[in-house]
Amino acid sequence: MTLIQERVHPKDAETRHPIHALLRQRWSPRAFTAHPIAPETLHRMLEAARWAPSAGNGQPWAFIIATRDDETEFARLLGVLNEKNQEWANSAAVLMLGLAATRRPDGKEHRLALYDLGLAVENLIVEGMANDVYAHQMAGFDADAARQAFAIPDGIAVVSAIALGYPADPALLPDDLRAREQSPRARKPLAEIAFRGRFGVPAPVVAD
Amino acid sequence: MTLIQERVHPKDAETRHPIHALLRQRWSPRAFTAHPIAPETLHRMLEAARWAPSAGNGQPWAFIIATRDDETEFARLLGVLNEKNQEWANSAAVLMLGLAATRRPDGKEHRLALYDLGLAVENLIVEGMANDVYAHQMAGFDADAARQAFAIPDGIAVVSAIALGYPADPALLPDDLRAREQSPRARKPLAEIAFRGRFGVPAPVVAD
Repeated sequence: MTLIQERVHPKDAETRHPIHALLRQRWSPRAFTAHPIAPETLHRMLEAARWAPSAGNGQPWAFIIATRDDETEFARLLGVLNEKNQEWANSAAVLMLGLAATRRPDGKEHRLALYDLGLAVENLIVEGMANDVYAHQMAGFDADAARQAFAIPDGIAVVSAIALGYPADPALLPDDLRAREQSPRARKPLAEIAFRGRFGVPAPVVAD
Repeated sequence: MTLIQERVHPKDAETRHPIHALLRQRWSPRAFTAHPIAPETLHRMLEAARWAPSAGNGQPWAFIIATRDDETEFARLLGVLNEKNQEWANSAAVLMLGLAATRRPDGKEHRLALYDLGLAVENLIVEGMANDVYAHQMAGFDADAARQAFAIPDGIAVVSAIALGYPADPALLPDDLRAREQSPRARKPLAEIAFRGRFGVPAPVVAD
């Protein structure tokens, strides 16, 4: 059976079987409007992260949050991002750092800390989508500078940075960023990620 | 303002601001009905994982999948779980392993591989909820045995195991598991995970 779910928005995921609109319409903008995120909306997104699953319910996640109206904190967080990211992330309504406790209270390494943080951040992003807030995550930042700026203790990894806001007209972006903003989203085929019996052998469920 | 979203189901998250039902109603059952997951539903869940965000769109995730009707593969995957998990996970409709490519094509370590897998798995779980399928993740399994059983190459980490299905009556469970199945879900307060300016200092948005 071939059943392509056609794109309505150019950034919609092109899926063979339909997926929920909150997941299908998610993408990572680089241009945000000046519209602030209401505290209640931000609170909901953090609640969603809070209620994510984690190994042994360890909840090894934490977030540093800077809202745009809080100029000192916003500048402090923007300042730890790579220059290339600062160019566009300065239009975000909220900036965050995603942190993970990679050491357990007993001093042992927590193997799943980053994985659990990923679960929580995706919950935050999905709740954002339910409120028309879009997220763009960044790996490009200075973790040491962040640790210094926000007094992040040893044993807590600075994992990701997240820009949040309402998407704006890509025409506002410089040429190189605008092209990326308007290109369709792409992913590996399912047969390259869903296996049966042996790594690399596609699962029957993803074949036609 | 105090606005508690009351529980309808005993496993509903008790949130101060409402979050989306797909996130609020998610929990991790240990008792599943005999009802199989339709291939189309499983396909949707994998599509949802596929369209998750990742650092540089690297998509470092993969899944080994065993459906209950595929007795050999189901037994093989069940066999790598810890005994305690096997007790209840044998009732799942589908078992999966979540894998992450921790080494990049150029041989360098991929710092965000587990984080990205977490993003993808939470997408899979949310899409499951949209189809009434519940997930229970496990950290308790033998990664070396899994590597052997499914010919998982070096540079690919075996990160998590996932049981999927439709929740069944907890009365079917042994006493100790039944108690956990019926206890309310709990999380750290938001003030312990959402900070402003300095690690450990609660963000104003999470205060009343």
